[in-house]
Amino acid sequence: MKILVTGFDPFGGESVNAASETVRRLPDAIAGAEIIRLEIPTVRYRSLQVIEEAICRHDPDVILSIGQAAGRADITVERIGINVDDYSIPDNEGNQVTDQPVIADGPDAYLVKVPVRAMVERIRSRSIPASISNSAGTFVCNHVIYGVCHLIATKYPGRQSGFLHIPCLPRQALGKGNMPSMSQEMMTEALKAAIEAIAEEKQNF
Amino acid sequence: MKILVTGFDPFGGESVNAASETVRRLPDAIAGAEIIRLEIPTVRYRSLQVIEEAICRHDPDVILSIGQAAGRADITVERIGINVDDYSIPDNEGNQVTDQPVIADGPDAYLVKVPVRAMVERIRSRSIPASISNSAGTFVCNHVIYGVCHLIATKYPGRQSGFLHIPCLPRQALGKGNMPSMSQEMMTEALKAAIEAIAEEKQNF
Amino acid sequence: MKILVTGFDPFGGESVNAASETVRRLPDAIAGAEIIRLEIPTVRYRSLQVIEEAICRHDPDVILSIGQAAGRADITVERIGINVDDYSIPDNEGNQVTDQPVIADGPDAYLVKVPVRAMVERIRSRSIPASISNSAGTFVCNHVIYGVCHLIATKYPGRQSGFLHIPCLPRQALGKGNMPSMSQEMMTEALKAAIEAIAEEKQNF
Amino acid sequence: MKILVTGFDPFGGESVNAASETVRRLPDAIAGAEIIRLEIPTVRYRSLQVIEEAICRHDPDVILSIGQAAGRADITVERIGINVDDYSIPDNEGNQVTDQPVIADGPDAYLVKVPVRAMVERIRSRSIPASISNSAGTFVCNHVIYGVCHLIATKYPGRQSGFLHIPCLPRQALGKGNMPSMSQEMMTEALKAAIEAIAEEKQNF
Repeated sequence: MKILVTGFDPFGGESVNAASETVRRLPDAIAGAEIIRLEIPTVRYRSLQVIEEAICRHDPDVILSIGQAAGRADITVERIGINVDDYSIPDNEGNQVTDQPVIADGPDAYLVKVPVRAMVERIRSRSIPASISNSAGTFVCNHVIYGVCHLIATKYPGRQSGFLHIPCLPRQALGKGNMPSMSQEMMTEALKAAIEAIAEEKQNF
Repeated sequence: MKILVTGFDPFGGESVNAASETVRRLPDAIAGAEIIRLEIPTVRYRSLQVIEEAICRHDPDVILSIGQAAGRADITVERIGINVDDYSIPDNEGNQVTDQPVIADGPDAYLVKVPVRAMVERIRSRSIPASISNSAGTFVCNHVIYGVCHLIATKYPGRQSGFLHIPCLPRQALGKGNMPSMSQEMMTEALKAAIEAIAEEKQNF
Repeated sequence: MKILVTGFDPFGGESVNAASETVRRLPDAIAGAEIIRLEIPTVRYRSLQVIEEAICRHDPDVILSIGQAAGRADITVERIGINVDDYSIPDNEGNQVTDQPVIADGPDAYLVKVPVRAMVERIRSRSIPASISNSAGTFVCNHVIYGVCHLIATKYPGRQSGFLHIPCLPRQALGKGNMPSMSQEMMTEALKAAIEAIAEEKQNF
Repeated sequence: MKILVTGFDPFGGESVNAASETVRRLPDAIAGAEIIRLEIPTVRYRSLQVIEEAICRHDPDVILSIGQAAGRADITVERIGINVDDYSIPDNEGNQVTDQPVIADGPDAYLVKVPVRAMVERIRSRSIPASISNSAGTFVCNHVIYGVCHLIATKYPGRQSGFLHIPCLPRQALGKGNMPSMSQEMMTEALKAAIEAIAEEKQNF
């Protein structure tokens, strides 16, 4: 089994993105699954193109994307991507759109196919706070959740996709008042735990 | 130089207190200062009696107390203790008082004598979020800040005292939604950094 | 034009629900539209049955449901209902389900058909804070958003539906620390403004 | 009995300050007390000079100051002012100081003399959320609490002073996400209730 794990590059004026920092620390194999690490641009559509190229090249069974959610204190496993692009800040190529669909004529939303609750429980079993999220917002994170589900539904059947939001790193929270953060070690461990839950579920089928 | 470092025992129905967990992990010496670790009860006045006994036994130059502040995301160095006991929950011996002084006829408040800003900066220099807090609330944490300052002002002159609030541990935040937390390693490191800042400042005089 | 406006009855041990309090204060007509006020039970499926009965009896053009969102500070116009019932507390008949669909084999979500952004702007034009929300949670509020959209899609075509979350009333926030609230007058005014935006948009077609 | 009620002018780039808006709406008499309304500048020391001039001119029995606390959801009656000026933004004349005393050689803090708890209870009795606050921060609001207490302690004995923080007005919260606010009517009513509690307590002595 192969799992493609993606992390966004920095955006919003930050020099680091906790997501790509964490993805690059993953080992080559977790629970018997081969791990392919990929940094993707925080850009509307271009993010999806880079993922689609990696799907073609690597033929992964699972695509798991990771994003940073400043202000969240725990690991959140996203349940759904919605057919809405509504950006309150520009993406890394200056796109800032209001109330646009990700895919014209696409369905209103896609519930992800990875085992969301098992992922949360596996992370918590390592004493790391985690919960299910019912909204990934309407910026590029949601764009990728929806867009990858749509790729699978329309062009690459038989695969699963999912999305984890992770907090800021402690160094990103310096001087930002009560901004929550999580240590790099704990975020890497959480991501491994989530991948284990996915790998084991697939191997049980 | 000797530094007495105190941590509260668990309260409010919790089985663990991040403060005592962190204090017990401190080494015997930091930056040339001897460290004396002490767990204190989360009890009005009894907490102060245990600290006073330790002052008599160990003759410390500095008394630094550590408390857990559920809901705070960063290390907060408290600036002041006020002459108010106003407990919204009972302490560990069932004391729940409203609008009472810590010390009848004591001054309204004491600003702590440790170098608050240098402690914050030293913690941040380790990439750990920290800030100054201007209120330790009105429960046993504030009681200890005020009470130890009053002991020093009235009976044990020439010493310094201070107080750090630390977030919950990750395992305490499990299942509590968006409750912030900080890893044990990071909290221990932060406490060491704060003590270094205190020790170096005193050695410069 | 007729608009059916529903408000939930109290739940979670509260004696009042800001939603039903506000709905019952609406006038019989707003911007030329006839207003039909309806209290609905905070109960899985039963809420939808009561709404469907009212659709049959009154033949409304629009169904606008109102719910209370404790902790939110502004009026939020919901954008989407998702096919998930995941209740962290029991509803008013004791139903507490985990990760169940609202409608087995229903689509993953429905974007609402009312003019969400125009509703927000109209409310703000009255100097009342409002924003778009991308998640109504997974309790009975979301159940009603999804369920009513599904009724319209499958049985009652040609209608629109929408959902507003409103904050707690000030008297519900007493003694609850920093819980935000909004005055009754302001919430009633906001609801009228939202309905005007819906009525005017439909009359322009 | 005379009560001087002060409200700050706008600061931080805002065009309105909820405090001065509310103070100017007070009637000339409340519960038998004559009310003197005064706008004061959000400026270090200059704020205190303007208050001292009004004390000399009007000889009030009570000085009650009102400030705006963006982000707080309820009316907070401040318990204490501390001898610290530590401004994270400049005041209206560009003063931005770090860790300075309000009054060199002044006591560390002053607990206010007005009946804080009775004021909170009276406001709540009007179904308006209110609570006691143990920190007014370290900007000009705290400067005024501490400074007026010090004026009374050193030059104008026999008087009382106090401070209320009020939320933003709804129109100040537009487009600021989940920023809490309170209607003008409710804030004016809360301020009247707090003044009644002060007036009645003094008349009982």
